[in-house]
Amino acid sequence: MSLNTYAHPFDIATSLKQQETGVYHGHTSDDYANMVGPFGGVIASTLLRAIIEHPDCLGSPVSFTVNYAAPVKDGSFIIKANPTRTNRSTQHWYVELCQHHEIVITATAVTAKKRDTWSSIELYKPEVPDAERVDSLSLTEVPPWVNHYDIKIVKGAPRAYTKSNYADSVTLQWMKDKPNRPLDYLSLASMCDAFFPRIYVRREKVVPIGTVSLTVYFHSDTEALEKHNNHHVLGHTRAQNFNNGFYDQTGEIWSADGSLLATTTQLVYYKE
Amino acid sequence: MSLNTYAHPFDIATSLKQQETGVYHGHTSDDYANMVGPFGGVIASTLLRAIIEHPDCLGSPVSFTVNYAAPVKDGSFIIKANPTRTNRSTQHWYVELCQHHEIVITATAVTAKKRDTWSSIELYKPEVPDAERVDSLSLTEVPPWVNHYDIKIVKGAPRAYTKSNYADSVTLQWMKDKPNRPLDYLSLASMCDAFFPRIYVRREKVVPIGTVSLTVYFHSDTEALEKHNNHHVLGHTRAQNFNNGFYDQTGEIWSADGSLLATTTQLVYYKE
Repeated sequence: MSLNTYAHPFDIATSLKQQETGVYHGHTSDDYANMVGPFGGVIASTLLRAIIEHPDCLGSPVSFTVNYAAPVKDGSFIIKANPTRTNRSTQHWYVELCQHHEIVITATAVTAKKRDTWSSIELYKPEVPDAERVDSLSLTEVPPWVNHYDIKIVKGAPRAYTKSNYADSVTLQWMKDKPNRPLDYLSLASMCDAFFPRIYVRREKVVPIGTVSLTVYFHSDTEALEKHNNHHVLGHTRAQNFNNGFYDQTGEIWSADGSLLATTTQLVYYKE
Repeated sequence: MSLNTYAHPFDIATSLKQQETGVYHGHTSDDYANMVGPFGGVIASTLLRAIIEHPDCLGSPVSFTVNYAAPVKDGSFIIKANPTRTNRSTQHWYVELCQHHEIVITATAVTAKKRDTWSSIELYKPEVPDAERVDSLSLTEVPPWVNHYDIKIVKGAPRAYTKSNYADSVTLQWMKDKPNRPLDYLSLASMCDAFFPRIYVRREKVVPIGTVSLTVYFHSDTEALEKHNNHHVLGHTRAQNFNNGFYDQTGEIWSADGSLLATTTQLVYYKE
């Protein structure tokens, strides 16, 4: 990265320095810090970058699962990304992030060359006011990563920020990088995790939580992402079940014109 | 397995012989053969068994992702299951299935000790007639695995078996092992994949398909599974988007009394 080229904070946060094929050195970023350690969405994107920038990478990501095995500590880390199997049109990946010689994150992914086929969408983009007509969140007591997104909540703000008592955990929010950055697979993966924890929409009590596993399916191709450019995406998310210390969160990410960009699901640990 | 003990075909199909800690030898089963190679659901269960039977396994599975990197060939295979990280109440796993020294399947999982906490369900079990009031599928030209389930389709049979032309890919079906077998994590994982491919509900044309990645979140604990015993589970599934060679499939598995046992999602490749 040369000093006279502008680099977006997201690209700095997810940047990797290749040490040998498939082995990279990276560093957490204060810009995307969470309450403790880095924001998990940006860490997911950093593992995805290790795949996308691998010299043997075939096609673009279609499926991506990240397992948060232990808290990432602020500082440097090593990522190892290896293709486990390369087929004619699909490729499978296993990735590990290590700190102090211990595995902290694991991930698997499928990349593929996509082709024109019969296609059909069964979901509808939720009907919401245009992004320009919704106020941006303006919060002071939030972790740094929140301030690197322009988030406009249509429905389902965390109870700490609203007087409402919701019967469900549904959130609809417009979001984009702050400052503006054209959408790509990396930022899309991170936005799949850029919702406030579902349990904080349902409960007033703020209990410790942590995502244990996150899965993203990319429904968009490079062309659709380029067309979307740096506009807000619409995120729709909900928990289906909170049960004995774990809850799920499912979601969809849409462009304003009704293209489904990604679907996502995660399992989250909560303390009490 | 002694000769004078009855073993269910599912337990035979998923049985593993430990060679050393975390390294197992297994074999595909004709009972659960698919059109080509073995049924993916039973293969997923076999990888999960490698975790559950590992001497170091902590707690029970909460999250499980299987990546089908290449077709499993009929015959024997080696599974290697290793804990990548063990915490106080959660443990992370990486598993590989190999044939002829090549990786054919990879999987990651999280196991955990569950605890009583605040709990809340936001989904409702779909309203359907009781299992006893729905006819069992009785098909002759189907792969062997189908005949090892008692499947009762309430809505959304594949178009090859019905005259209907559906506007969506939703299927509701009761299912259980045939012959009867008490439900456990292994059979529940397999049932998450025991729906006919969504694309065959939508399209009359039978195109080649294959799951590339399957994720299961277990919402049930051992006690709930034991209570369920060998009754039918209700499966609800749909595709959200068919796009350029890949579609997703999401689903929920319920007990008749309204307990959510598992949620699942998969990404499926299709040819044209």
